[in-house]
Amino acid sequence: MAANGCIRIKLYMNHQVISKEEIALAHERIRRFIHRTPVLRSSFLDNLTGAELFFKPENFQKIGAFKARGGLNALLSLSTEELLHGVTTHSSGNHAQAIAFAAAMVGAKAYIVMPENSPKVKIKAVEGYGAEITFCINSQEERERAVQEIILRTGAAFVHPFNNYHVIAGQATASKELFEDVGKSLDVVIAPVGGGGLLAGTALGAHYFSPETSVYAGEPEGAADAILSFKSGNIEKAPYVKTIADGLLTTLGDKTFPVIRAHVTDILAVSDEEITQAMRYLWERMKIVVEPSGAVSLAAVLKNSALFSGKRVGIILSGGNVDLGNLPF
Amino acid sequence: MAANGCIRIKLYMNHQVISKEEIALAHERIRRFIHRTPVLRSSFLDNLTGAELFFKPENFQKIGAFKARGGLNALLSLSTEELLHGVTTHSSGNHAQAIAFAAAMVGAKAYIVMPENSPKVKIKAVEGYGAEITFCINSQEERERAVQEIILRTGAAFVHPFNNYHVIAGQATASKELFEDVGKSLDVVIAPVGGGGLLAGTALGAHYFSPETSVYAGEPEGAADAILSFKSGNIEKAPYVKTIADGLLTTLGDKTFPVIRAHVTDILAVSDEEITQAMRYLWERMKIVVEPSGAVSLAAVLKNSALFSGKRVGIILSGGNVDLGNLPF
Repeated sequence: MAANGCIRIKLYMNHQVISKEEIALAHERIRRFIHRTPVLRSSFLDNLTGAELFFKPENFQKIGAFKARGGLNALLSLSTEELLHGVTTHSSGNHAQAIAFAAAMVGAKAYIVMPENSPKVKIKAVEGYGAEITFCINSQEERERAVQEIILRTGAAFVHPFNNYHVIAGQATASKELFEDVGKSLDVVIAPVGGGGLLAGTALGAHYFSPETSVYAGEPEGAADAILSFKSGNIEKAPYVKTIADGLLTTLGDKTFPVIRAHVTDILAVSDEEITQAMRYLWERMKIVVEPSGAVSLAAVLKNSALFSGKRVGIILSGGNVDLGNLPF
Repeated sequence: MAANGCIRIKLYMNHQVISKEEIALAHERIRRFIHRTPVLRSSFLDNLTGAELFFKPENFQKIGAFKARGGLNALLSLSTEELLHGVTTHSSGNHAQAIAFAAAMVGAKAYIVMPENSPKVKIKAVEGYGAEITFCINSQEERERAVQEIILRTGAAFVHPFNNYHVIAGQATASKELFEDVGKSLDVVIAPVGGGGLLAGTALGAHYFSPETSVYAGEPEGAADAILSFKSGNIEKAPYVKTIADGLLTTLGDKTFPVIRAHVTDILAVSDEEITQAMRYLWERMKIVVEPSGAVSLAAVLKNSALFSGKRVGIILSGGNVDLGNLPF
């Protein structure tokens, strides 16, 4: 007991910078702006895996992905003074929409840096929320330089897509809802991992609201930085980056990685073929539009069904923003 | 009051062969086999139409379409003696799956006649429920001949896809659930029309469970038999049949048409382009997989937004069985 107490205290010192109360507060803050996404079941996929699967379809979330949660919590955590200067970020994907949407909700100006080759549908969506878009060449350096210029010019607050405690606390509300809505306790919850915002949030959600639940992650083989980092104990880069799951290309951050190390049981690699098969099941059998990144958790469960068979498994489907003109099937 | 009473009695004599109690009983019968599909909202589509839209996504229903409801009620209305001989029907589409599924649920043998050019995914689904498939050339005559042979050989009961009062009563449970789950009353409910099973059921659902609700239908321009029949007062054939909405090609039946004439306010034609646009909104904005036939009601609301603006409109999305390799966008 004493030893356990010690370990727990040490974990809290090192990694538990986000408290249970902060996640509950995040949920209260964002509740009126987001969808409480339902829990979906599929007898076909239950039979296929031998598990009881409980899907949390965040593809139905505002802006089509869980990122609306973290973006909103981050903006609602800023002071009125800070919000007066607006917010800024760089993203070609769901985070751009999340910040543009959240800014519209709280009445702040959003300055979004987007690579000039971003999909038109995403540019239109960001414009639709009234954000000011700055286009740049698609390199990390150019994106960051453009954001720096905006900050100097406007005083806008920068909101990182995942390496931000308010963002992580916001993402934690997805698994919190899942635990509340399934009713019975889950043996496992699984989320995809890119930068680790959703996974760290899911892990903290389980830690505080369903401590009997083990946390797993799915990661594309073609962006396997988190698996490497999880093994080595240091934040590593992926050996190569080439995957259909274009929302999971980024490397873990120093705020997400410690939470993941402390609370995640394992990270499971899946190939693009396995992601595409999982996506096809979600579309054909469950009739829901899920993007490749969003199908990674199911792909990991399908691939490792021996591990999950007989268990009650929560599966977080992260998003559904996909170009219908460019499908893998 | 006396006059109203008279009219009501007359309607009952002519068209009300299905009572409120029969629909309630159908719901009790099928409840444990079907999904109670949720009610979905979309602020994007609300803004686009100026209406408050309440979607009933029967693409999430067992077998991916509302037809599971009618098929189950028809089979559960047969006697044990009749079920011993099995059931039969001909269909290349959702009705084949519905009867195969319903037969599996009640433990009866299903003999399904399918055109030899039916989509492989549908053949596999029917086989998956343990049904015996007889393939035939795709003509109405050959299909009916094959079914006749099965009936002579096995004594199986024929279940028509729509021109059957138990089927209509089963389909009525979709709008009954919608009225119950929306809570507040709807001004309008709209369904697609092919043979008229869903539309007649929806109309009776409104008549008995939400009489203040007006009933509309959407129909493809390229299979506009119901619009013609509605105007002329006789069951007419479509002037031509060519539409992407391949679930709505059939003509009204003598059991569906009188109900539709008595209880439907109007039937609205939509083009294939309008159906495809509605489908795209459902996929891109609501992240749900809906087949072209299933998007026809939304297409009609989008085309006639002046008619529905300011109203609370229930939209029945009939199904989501679509070939992912053959999408219109």
